[in-house]
Amino acid sequence: MPASKVYEDDDVLAIMDIQPINPGHVLVLPKTHYGQMKDLPADISAKIFDVVKQVEEALWKTDAVACAGTNILQNNGRIASQEVHHVHVHVIPRIAGDGLKLSLQTQDTDRDELDELSEVISEYL
Amino acid sequence: MPASKVYEDDDVLAIMDIQPINPGHVLVLPKTHYGQMKDLPADISAKIFDVVKQVEEALWKTDAVACAGTNILQNNGRIASQEVHHVHVHVIPRIAGDGLKLSLQTQDTDRDELDELSEVISEYL
Repeated sequence: MPASKVYEDDDVLAIMDIQPINPGHVLVLPKTHYGQMKDLPADISAKIFDVVKQVEEALWKTDAVACAGTNILQNNGRIASQEVHHVHVHVIPRIAGDGLKLSLQTQDTDRDELDELSEVISEYL
Repeated sequence: MPASKVYEDDDVLAIMDIQPINPGHVLVLPKTHYGQMKDLPADISAKIFDVVKQVEEALWKTDAVACAGTNILQNNGRIASQEVHHVHVHVIPRIAGDGLKLSLQTQDTDRDELDELSEVISEYL
């Protein structure tokens, strides 16, 4: 597959998304196949997010992109809109007037529920 | 402010979002104030994303969450839906049947445009 390469090293590749949400939309991915974030070794994950940060900064500096903000998005699982089963991180520039809405409905909760969840989750950290 | 803590070290905090998109929605943030990703020192960014990965894995393991997928989301700038001007990463569990749609309209493009953008962005990497 042809790809418009932004960055490449031994482990990580950054390429232009062929279905950009805005012009300048970059995907950062490992060269080795891993399906989801939880499948990634910690060192590869660290390298990927280091490149994500560099790409994010580059978007702000690139006049041709006219970046007014960014969304970093990484989806795991079909329910989460992961369409390709190979870990990838979206670095999406936001352009003034792009009219995009990132709307995910929030829910009511209370401190008891939050305390209970934080306790059970923290057991796995 | 009260917070339901999932994780804490010298640099990084993980707490339950008080406006969860699903139960188990965690925020990972630096203790020191940085407004956006581009303001973060590389070492702090690395620590944050290391914790993000650990939290993401913990969500899958936590029976009380019933995780069927995850979205990792980090917003920079008001246009990108950043509501609090202190860097934070959302780790959002997706629950079977949650009905959430993460819809950001994609655009048409062509290889010439992608090649041109990859070239100018790569100059800043």
